[in-house]
Amino acid sequence: MSDESNAKSMSIIVTKGTLDWAYPPFILATTAAAMGLDVTMFFTFYGLGLLKKDMNLKVNPLGNASMEMPMMGGHMAMPNIMAAIPGATALTTAMMKNMIKKKGIASIDELRELAVEADVNMIACQMTMDLFEYKKEDMIENISVGGAASWVDIATRSDINLYI
Amino acid sequence: MSDESNAKSMSIIVTKGTLDWAYPPFILATTAAAMGLDVTMFFTFYGLGLLKKDMNLKVNPLGNASMEMPMMGGHMAMPNIMAAIPGATALTTAMMKNMIKKKGIASIDELRELAVEADVNMIACQMTMDLFEYKKEDMIENISVGGAASWVDIATRSDINLYI
Amino acid sequence: MSDESNAKSMSIIVTKGTLDWAYPPFILATTAAAMGLDVTMFFTFYGLGLLKKDMNLKVNPLGNASMEMPMMGGHMAMPNIMAAIPGATALTTAMMKNMIKKKGIASIDELRELAVEADVNMIACQMTMDLFEYKKEDMIENISVGGAASWVDIATRSDINLYI
Repeated sequence: MSDESNAKSMSIIVTKGTLDWAYPPFILATTAAAMGLDVTMFFTFYGLGLLKKDMNLKVNPLGNASMEMPMMGGHMAMPNIMAAIPGATALTTAMMKNMIKKKGIASIDELRELAVEADVNMIACQMTMDLFEYKKEDMIENISVGGAASWVDIATRSDINLYI
Repeated sequence: MSDESNAKSMSIIVTKGTLDWAYPPFILATTAAAMGLDVTMFFTFYGLGLLKKDMNLKVNPLGNASMEMPMMGGHMAMPNIMAAIPGATALTTAMMKNMIKKKGIASIDELRELAVEADVNMIACQMTMDLFEYKKEDMIENISVGGAASWVDIATRSDINLYI
Repeated sequence: MSDESNAKSMSIIVTKGTLDWAYPPFILATTAAAMGLDVTMFFTFYGLGLLKKDMNLKVNPLGNASMEMPMMGGHMAMPNIMAAIPGATALTTAMMKNMIKKKGIASIDELRELAVEADVNMIACQMTMDLFEYKKEDMIENISVGGAASWVDIATRSDINLYI
């Protein structure tokens, strides 16, 4: 984090852990850090998995009525019935990973590495670690562990606060 | 946007594109604009579809364990098994559209028109446009295209920032 | 709420109503209130159900590709096909309730009671009450009813604003 006391600051509560919803927090955090902001990410609930050494992210086609993929020259919405068949999560995940790669967009692993390099302050939620029985050695280095109070304290002094 | 330098301001990151989740950003944006705030909406991920000329919004009954409809004098939760049958999305969407109309609540089209008239600053996310292969001519007029950095810049100067 | 004019303040828009997503707003609100912040919660859309006297919260296994449970010594992700069978919501809900109890984490009822005791300002969204046909007598005491404008007014004067 910057030592300049007049630097702007942002905190993000990261609660989602699917491949698609992992993008917004990392894109916003790395963009803001590149612009000179002090950035803190607090990983909690399903978002805590994004700090694991071995991420295994999936896109869930269910519950995304608005999801559509560029396909055969047009856009095709994913029908629920297709989403419900076995293997659909794997298929959708593969399709999105392929699309992201084709478009030259960084992977979540790459964005997370970028965030570490940009000195983004990453905090793993203590309560969620206990609840899901995650161990410190399963997580990447360069993170700290803290509770909701740590976030509240930081948020009261941040210019921007987001819950994702 | 207002020219008064002392006007309060709000930015909203709009990431969801289903019929139900399209309401909160537009209701909050138009309410705040009516109260004199400078409002910016940044449409990204699934939310980008809300800027298309031809919106085709759906409610997805899957993934909404808490969804319940006033029905036969009481409230009935939508069971997953009903949600999984083909046509359930269309049925739920029709039910919600009907309920909204019966209650005299504005449609998303009407709220979006209201936002345009209230000079809400609407930005389409460049990266999402590239990813989903949306074209500028598919989108409504009166919007600009920008990246995450545009939003960060505006957010550092806004009194309220929301991620929806 | 505190009368001290220099107390920090937080507002939370609560839009989700499932058992899992009910935790973040109540944990953040009670933590912040315990730290001396003036806290306002605005309950709207599916979140309004969290103010009902008789809550009946469920976890929906569908749409949570990232949900995993500590099980048989490891972590097992919930496959969609299992989530789609009848009774899966009840099963997942029972599993999570059991896990939360085993870990000594407070129930939503207990956290809500804590929020009331900490003088958290709870507002039920008028429009949602009309839409879902909820009656004032179905809701807990100590709440007020207001519109989006009430929240905007409070948010312009709050240090932290979250949309959950």
